[in-house]
Amino acid sequence: MQKTIQSHALIYKKFGDPREVLELETIQIPAEPSKGECLVQWLASPINPLDINRVQGNYALKTKPPVIGGSEGVGKVIKAGSGSRFKVGDHVTIFSAETPFWTENGIVDDKDLVQLDNRIPLDLAATLMINPPTAWIMLQKYVKLEKGDYVIQNSANSGVGRSVIELCKAFGYKSINIVRSRPNIEALKTDLWRIGADHVFTEEEFKQTSKEFLKSIKSRPKLALNGVGGKSALQISSVLERGGTCVTYGGMSKKAHEFTTSALVFNDIQVRGVAVGMWARREENLDEWNYCVEQVQKFAVEGKLTSIPMEKVSLADHKKAIQKSMEGKSIKQLFIINSSATSRL
Amino acid sequence: MQKTIQSHALIYKKFGDPREVLELETIQIPAEPSKGECLVQWLASPINPLDINRVQGNYALKTKPPVIGGSEGVGKVIKAGSGSRFKVGDHVTIFSAETPFWTENGIVDDKDLVQLDNRIPLDLAATLMINPPTAWIMLQKYVKLEKGDYVIQNSANSGVGRSVIELCKAFGYKSINIVRSRPNIEALKTDLWRIGADHVFTEEEFKQTSKEFLKSIKSRPKLALNGVGGKSALQISSVLERGGTCVTYGGMSKKAHEFTTSALVFNDIQVRGVAVGMWARREENLDEWNYCVEQVQKFAVEGKLTSIPMEKVSLADHKKAIQKSMEGKSIKQLFIINSSATSRL
Repeated sequence: MQKTIQSHALIYKKFGDPREVLELETIQIPAEPSKGECLVQWLASPINPLDINRVQGNYALKTKPPVIGGSEGVGKVIKAGSGSRFKVGDHVTIFSAETPFWTENGIVDDKDLVQLDNRIPLDLAATLMINPPTAWIMLQKYVKLEKGDYVIQNSANSGVGRSVIELCKAFGYKSINIVRSRPNIEALKTDLWRIGADHVFTEEEFKQTSKEFLKSIKSRPKLALNGVGGKSALQISSVLERGGTCVTYGGMSKKAHEFTTSALVFNDIQVRGVAVGMWARREENLDEWNYCVEQVQKFAVEGKLTSIPMEKVSLADHKKAIQKSMEGKSIKQLFIINSSATSRL
Repeated sequence: MQKTIQSHALIYKKFGDPREVLELETIQIPAEPSKGECLVQWLASPINPLDINRVQGNYALKTKPPVIGGSEGVGKVIKAGSGSRFKVGDHVTIFSAETPFWTENGIVDDKDLVQLDNRIPLDLAATLMINPPTAWIMLQKYVKLEKGDYVIQNSANSGVGRSVIELCKAFGYKSINIVRSRPNIEALKTDLWRIGADHVFTEEEFKQTSKEFLKSIKSRPKLALNGVGGKSALQISSVLERGGTCVTYGGMSKKAHEFTTSALVFNDIQVRGVAVGMWARREENLDEWNYCVEQVQKFAVEGKLTSIPMEKVSLADHKKAIQKSMEGKSIKQLFIINSSATSRL
């Protein structure tokens, strides 16, 4: 009989309310990886909105339950099967359609594993494969930007938004950042300035002052990045330079994305959308994707990309963490899956 | 003293309500064109929504009054200046930023004149330089379509919409046409089928039956053409094939154009806009524009492009005609400027 090890895993056996259908179970994992596989000890994995949608059965790509949750994370190779390109101690993540992160241990095929630089702090490593690449692709693949060019974005305090700010700074672009108003707005602005934002406005402030502001900068933004939708998409796309591009990566407001006739017809803007998972899997983008992953890791090692603020929780506290994630009033929840990880956070 | 001829012209001396500020005046025109100019007798010119906006001062390109109205039309060269490339009797139109059509006679520089094939019926010739080229550009310049491919559009009964139907038929594309519901809907459908529409739905019908309908056709539309905005843009862009394109040419609903996150992010559609006047004047499009004008004239001569239904009115009846145009409940109004034109209509 094959030797196994026990692993606690957060599993859903049917689609439904994540607060109800997610259960912490003990599963058996083969103790020895086969040829070209690794036994990975998972260290940390965030709760993303995507995870909630998946458990609810609302995500486009549906995997039939039972399924182990999670959409990104970081782990450590503890045993490498024969012929594996990884060695014990390597930090890794999964990049495939099926991403079982919320388990203490897992056997993963080499072809689904991506090596992460061991120098990257674990909280950043756990959130490196979705948001920073989304920002990187949007900044690099739609418009040819020069140093000093302006980029405008809404949802500037989201994971993608913060990556956009940091990458703009790294590339030498100027970022104009729109956030929703909130009680602690000055603290938020200070935080975004700290990570490199050039300009931060609430939606209302920008509505009132954009005319003057746009006159004060050398040229209008060539690129608008939209994670919100509704009138917020309209707001940022309406100030683009002639022929500029608006790239949408999300619709946090759950409202359709709005664009004016004037922007589309007379200002000749282009509107695009990107989903990093689909982009990365397109044959023609493979080389670019590998380069992107290399680049975001380089920026992470250099401290040019930093982790977003997250609350660390154990898998055992999943009900509370999921509840907080669904309410959307707390900072992102990060599962610390193996306590050996804690010292590195 | 220079010899002049008298000409009745519809002029506005200040921006304002077109029913009030437009006045029929008698102006003096040089009787002899100078070198490289023509004396043109204008025959017919429609009232376009653009004309209303211009008189109101609501159009992007503002010419300081006094201005002679009109944005497209057809005339006949009655005297050609020395060195002009035109000869007496040639049918012509103007393609420039300033387009004084609503006058019996005018002196026009050769470089602003475009020759129209004399075989084209005058009502069609008077409306050939905006709507058919808009349709042509949208069908030819954004997506590579093959014979049998589907195109979906809203506002299918508009001038552009009808050109789209006829050009789709001429090119061998299949058109899916959405119109607003109205009392005489079956008569409208019959009319659109007559000019070549493959499928005609009201917005409500398409909402209810699109799922079944889309299953019944060999592939989803690659191109959506949007002249309406609001939820109608969302409706036609949501059924595009993966990677399809939605081109906007107008916003008749006066609502912002809406697109879903799913269409933009997961279905990877592109959203573009076009204004034919600006498109045609771009350096890189000049050859294409000349080819487009040649093509729409060829289709017009062959009867593949036909005139939209219009009500013929004299310049003297301008108040009633403008009133009808502004209410938007009547068919398009066409000024018959010189009675010599009438026999050709």
